[in-house]
Amino acid sequence: MSSIIGTKVKISVFGESHGEAIGVVIDGLPAGYDIDFDKVYEDMKRRAPGQDKFSTPRAEKDMPRVLSGIFNGKTTGAPLAAIIENSNTKSKDYSELKVKMRPSHSDYPAMIKYDGYNDYRGGGHFSGRLTAMFVFAGAVCKEILKEKDIYVGSHIKSIRNVKDSSFDKTNITKELLDELRENRFPTLNKDVVEDMQKEILDAKNDLDSVGGVIEAAIINLPAGVGNPMFNSVESVLSHMLFSIPAVKGVEFGEGFNISTLRGSEANDSYYIEDGKIKTYTNNNGGILGGITNGMPVVFSLAIKPTPSISKPQKTVNVETMENDILEVHGRHDPCIVQRAVPVVECAAAVAILDILLQGKQQ
Amino acid sequence: MSSIIGTKVKISVFGESHGEAIGVVIDGLPAGYDIDFDKVYEDMKRRAPGQDKFSTPRAEKDMPRVLSGIFNGKTTGAPLAAIIENSNTKSKDYSELKVKMRPSHSDYPAMIKYDGYNDYRGGGHFSGRLTAMFVFAGAVCKEILKEKDIYVGSHIKSIRNVKDSSFDKTNITKELLDELRENRFPTLNKDVVEDMQKEILDAKNDLDSVGGVIEAAIINLPAGVGNPMFNSVESVLSHMLFSIPAVKGVEFGEGFNISTLRGSEANDSYYIEDGKIKTYTNNNGGILGGITNGMPVVFSLAIKPTPSISKPQKTVNVETMENDILEVHGRHDPCIVQRAVPVVECAAAVAILDILLQGKQQ
Amino acid sequence: MSSIIGTKVKISVFGESHGEAIGVVIDGLPAGYDIDFDKVYEDMKRRAPGQDKFSTPRAEKDMPRVLSGIFNGKTTGAPLAAIIENSNTKSKDYSELKVKMRPSHSDYPAMIKYDGYNDYRGGGHFSGRLTAMFVFAGAVCKEILKEKDIYVGSHIKSIRNVKDSSFDKTNITKELLDELRENRFPTLNKDVVEDMQKEILDAKNDLDSVGGVIEAAIINLPAGVGNPMFNSVESVLSHMLFSIPAVKGVEFGEGFNISTLRGSEANDSYYIEDGKIKTYTNNNGGILGGITNGMPVVFSLAIKPTPSISKPQKTVNVETMENDILEVHGRHDPCIVQRAVPVVECAAAVAILDILLQGKQQ
Amino acid sequence: MSSIIGTKVKISVFGESHGEAIGVVIDGLPAGYDIDFDKVYEDMKRRAPGQDKFSTPRAEKDMPRVLSGIFNGKTTGAPLAAIIENSNTKSKDYSELKVKMRPSHSDYPAMIKYDGYNDYRGGGHFSGRLTAMFVFAGAVCKEILKEKDIYVGSHIKSIRNVKDSSFDKTNITKELLDELRENRFPTLNKDVVEDMQKEILDAKNDLDSVGGVIEAAIINLPAGVGNPMFNSVESVLSHMLFSIPAVKGVEFGEGFNISTLRGSEANDSYYIEDGKIKTYTNNNGGILGGITNGMPVVFSLAIKPTPSISKPQKTVNVETMENDILEVHGRHDPCIVQRAVPVVECAAAVAILDILLQGKQQ
Repeated sequence: MSSIIGTKVKISVFGESHGEAIGVVIDGLPAGYDIDFDKVYEDMKRRAPGQDKFSTPRAEKDMPRVLSGIFNGKTTGAPLAAIIENSNTKSKDYSELKVKMRPSHSDYPAMIKYDGYNDYRGGGHFSGRLTAMFVFAGAVCKEILKEKDIYVGSHIKSIRNVKDSSFDKTNITKELLDELRENRFPTLNKDVVEDMQKEILDAKNDLDSVGGVIEAAIINLPAGVGNPMFNSVESVLSHMLFSIPAVKGVEFGEGFNISTLRGSEANDSYYIEDGKIKTYTNNNGGILGGITNGMPVVFSLAIKPTPSISKPQKTVNVETMENDILEVHGRHDPCIVQRAVPVVECAAAVAILDILLQGKQQ
Repeated sequence: MSSIIGTKVKISVFGESHGEAIGVVIDGLPAGYDIDFDKVYEDMKRRAPGQDKFSTPRAEKDMPRVLSGIFNGKTTGAPLAAIIENSNTKSKDYSELKVKMRPSHSDYPAMIKYDGYNDYRGGGHFSGRLTAMFVFAGAVCKEILKEKDIYVGSHIKSIRNVKDSSFDKTNITKELLDELRENRFPTLNKDVVEDMQKEILDAKNDLDSVGGVIEAAIINLPAGVGNPMFNSVESVLSHMLFSIPAVKGVEFGEGFNISTLRGSEANDSYYIEDGKIKTYTNNNGGILGGITNGMPVVFSLAIKPTPSISKPQKTVNVETMENDILEVHGRHDPCIVQRAVPVVECAAAVAILDILLQGKQQ
Repeated sequence: MSSIIGTKVKISVFGESHGEAIGVVIDGLPAGYDIDFDKVYEDMKRRAPGQDKFSTPRAEKDMPRVLSGIFNGKTTGAPLAAIIENSNTKSKDYSELKVKMRPSHSDYPAMIKYDGYNDYRGGGHFSGRLTAMFVFAGAVCKEILKEKDIYVGSHIKSIRNVKDSSFDKTNITKELLDELRENRFPTLNKDVVEDMQKEILDAKNDLDSVGGVIEAAIINLPAGVGNPMFNSVESVLSHMLFSIPAVKGVEFGEGFNISTLRGSEANDSYYIEDGKIKTYTNNNGGILGGITNGMPVVFSLAIKPTPSISKPQKTVNVETMENDILEVHGRHDPCIVQRAVPVVECAAAVAILDILLQGKQQ
Repeated sequence: MSSIIGTKVKISVFGESHGEAIGVVIDGLPAGYDIDFDKVYEDMKRRAPGQDKFSTPRAEKDMPRVLSGIFNGKTTGAPLAAIIENSNTKSKDYSELKVKMRPSHSDYPAMIKYDGYNDYRGGGHFSGRLTAMFVFAGAVCKEILKEKDIYVGSHIKSIRNVKDSSFDKTNITKELLDELRENRFPTLNKDVVEDMQKEILDAKNDLDSVGGVIEAAIINLPAGVGNPMFNSVESVLSHMLFSIPAVKGVEFGEGFNISTLRGSEANDSYYIEDGKIKTYTNNNGGILGGITNGMPVVFSLAIKPTPSISKPQKTVNVETMENDILEVHGRHDPCIVQRAVPVVECAAAVAILDILLQGKQQ
């Protein structure tokens, strides 16, 4: 229930930050698709830590090992499983973190839920490290979407209060998405990168952290994909996206801003171009009544600042049940937004392939 | 797949705006609970149209008829089904709406998805009228939550640009939620009501519409409810909330605003009060790692302006495949935010009861 | 969880024997299919009681009323719901049955499961009456299968020890299935009917009951339908078939008898006829590795003798917790096998349509 | 969809006979349970081939490696994953088997379903080798059931026509199940073992194979476990059991034999002993209305003779589309019944733990 998701394409994620290995099983992939694992590993690397000074110097060099589901380079229709061994884990003393709950981490609710039996080392199964398997699964799904000419891409819309432009939601090209993919700090407006990075480094120097917003797009989805009501594209995508740690908000199209418009401003009027039905605007982010209308599907996510900071913080000791002070030392990402970019894209790719394979009707 | 949701408590919603009846089956309710149907009908009435000049004058007088699942006034553990007959439907000519797609409605994607076989009259299965069954189901679930001392309530946070205050997310009482429930325009700050209503009436006079934001809270949920990863409380709640027509954004706690904070500002530090673990702030909206931490669960939703407006709009005729102008006459809600308030509460109640009944561990 | 089943086509059944109404929601039907409701009602009538002296004289005249999902005579893709009002329920005193558990009925386990809150009148939600909705749902699904030239039919293979012949599992025609459908006692060998009916009437005279075996077939399913492992055609069909009250065994092809054969006898060897791959025998009932091989899918079910008999029986009184004697008076089916025939066919039709619509790959 | 099963405890099985590794993810195990892996490996060994002359001399020495979900020797509540590396696979030429379909194997339907992209070597994902992961998962579940004093055991009820006695279904003790577990040919009547083994060796000498029946029991399940209708204990168990390759029939209690009894013979009358409600007989196998009644849950399965035989068999070549003769050489089990015994027990253990953890009510 907890770590399995999907209807047609199901993924089952397992592992803990400091366990033997983390892994994923992708069940329900169609047979006969070529998977370019170089592309998959490229996405893995986009998420990997230690790539620059904006993220933790931890190295996760190891790439996933595929255990099943591929034969002669193609999907077989049987479950595709992959694991990453946790070879490079730094062994250390976790006894303090067992009793002193890190603020805004899963430590306390997980301890309550699992009666203290959860693997608390490095966050255990709740660790952001697990999102490496979201990326693997989604990168595989992207390869199948690619065959259908469907692409997923994204940019950093803001870091703290430094804002990038927004997508022109009626016109997002594969070329633009490809170009964004080339950058570790993908923005539409190159001029804001320096300010964004300064925000991160300032926070780092202050032993603090920052968050931001990611805007993503899925292009070339045909009209008629999705469902009314409980399996609307918004429902299925948001379900998946809120599974990514640190995501605290999801909006489609103009999102919260649409609540400030009048109907006459918000409505996306139709017109015909080259025999194809389009809309002048795309305030609804390509989804109406839970179903795609053929325009780009556009959504944004709020990423909270990394909760792991080195500044001393007030907390409680759950053993003594007394107030206490926590000082976490070690290597933390002052900002995870740039590393979350491929995670968001890949998580969305899994969800979209799942919806798409359900067929137009169900 | 489309109109069924839930894990332990499942609801299955059926019906079309102009069909014989709409209804819901609630499967998985625990046995032996008293359901106060007066309270249920009260919530139904909060959603019903025609209550005042801010909503459509259509009357949906009829209340649901319970067909099963109740014996001697208590739940039996068997599915609880209820229907509302569509007795009061105004018969009219829908031939124009069959071919002229209403902007920002489900008309066009539904036609594509169902190859034109969908019941397009009044939006068919996509109609907002179906949310009456969300309210029924959720109001029943609320009765069970009440036995566990858990309450759901909400207020209108904004209408267009007129803003109410936000909840003090660390301190939300049953009394406050009860008080909000008494009002058709529930706000924390009574002074903004007049301005909100003026926005709606202005739009109405202009044959236009407005949207807004609803902030909701669930109080007294114990810590340890929910799941890591794919069935996080955020995932399950957002999945349900995005099933409500017109919702384009969902955020938890500080939501998008948390992305502008630093970690040291955003983190909710712990302290002990009366032997109970609490947090000084509640920027995470009571959920960490997908699991409740015992603080109020707080979330907001963006509601788009009613897409049905009487102003002429550009559209296409899907039969002739030509650009066209649509003029929709009839009775429309200039704003559905106030009517969406009980829908949001009740949809959330279904999702939360579902999560809660899964037990602390799964 | 309990009364909902299916992956692509889901059915949700509700109601109690003596409640307001029983009903079913069929979610996930493809749009655009003509449903011949005369055929549906024909199947309803095949199951209905009171048709002859072999079943209870109770009359269930009323036919289901369709509430949604049909527009202009065709499926819309939205949930199809139907109910039967329980207008003709005979009101009587159930106080004895509340405390004296009927042997081999659900009374005792249901009382324990639901802490006594279940509607025990006439078996409540466990009543065989609910299978009327299986028939309705399956008869609708049969209409869609018909469009794909796929048919379901069955015969009474035995009543107690009186045995009919078995299907020639390599050669089952639509004509044969149509012919079986014409009879209330469908058998391959007409000569056994009299002996079967004598078994039933003898039991009736002795205030007793008898059971039997039904053999069913699904023809023209293409090869390649189904799944390996957990969603094998056998798994999905048996899951559905064991949902029918009184079914205590399910077997495919030669079933239990195959365990007495040697591999060289049991194996279904392939040959080519008219460019099509066939098997000389069909001991595996058309399913290998959980997937259809293009031969008829054949399966049998054991139906236990009706547990409701008028003979005095030993039981316990759960209130006094003392041994007691139960004498059930009233109108009971001395045999439900003949009425179970359409139930089996229709339940199988729901499951098979569900599997088929999942597509060849998933 | 295909290789994932379960509601509360879900298992996801992956791997192919000749791939890198096979494995299983067990999601939803409760936290805090000690798992005695020596017991788990004992069950693995009971299934392993090459233990005697009645099964294939292939050796699968390697035991599973646990990758996650265990911390300090206890379940953590996070997914428990384990893999077995396919180190010992004998490399050989599979080109003939790619085109000549083995009778009664999954070869042909799998080729059709997956358009020829399936890994056909050794049956690929359909291989009986995958049941090693059923055993692992079920053996882990057995450890949790043990804490609740619930036990699963079984015996060989028949090999071809050589029959063992049946369980006394009203009285099955832990001691009896323990004793059966000690034997590689577990039978109630020791005198039949020799004849059973002779059947197997005779078939082996004839390059042929035999099948049989396994009878299993689950004891100490409380009354009130399970569901009416679609998630009856019979439905859930049979769904799981038919996932085991070679199973062609499943029956509960007296199963098919109950269809030859009269109601007065078949009904399990109640009585009170030591304040506990029991039944004089247990023809229903401990399940009424889909729910346990507190008596032992008893069921039997028909296992077909191993389809892999060395005798020449008629088949088709799917490349040339011509009739052909297949001669399979190599090491095959002349009988898999004895190796299926732990598979049946463990598969049942997974299903029963899943049902049990759903709670009495749902």
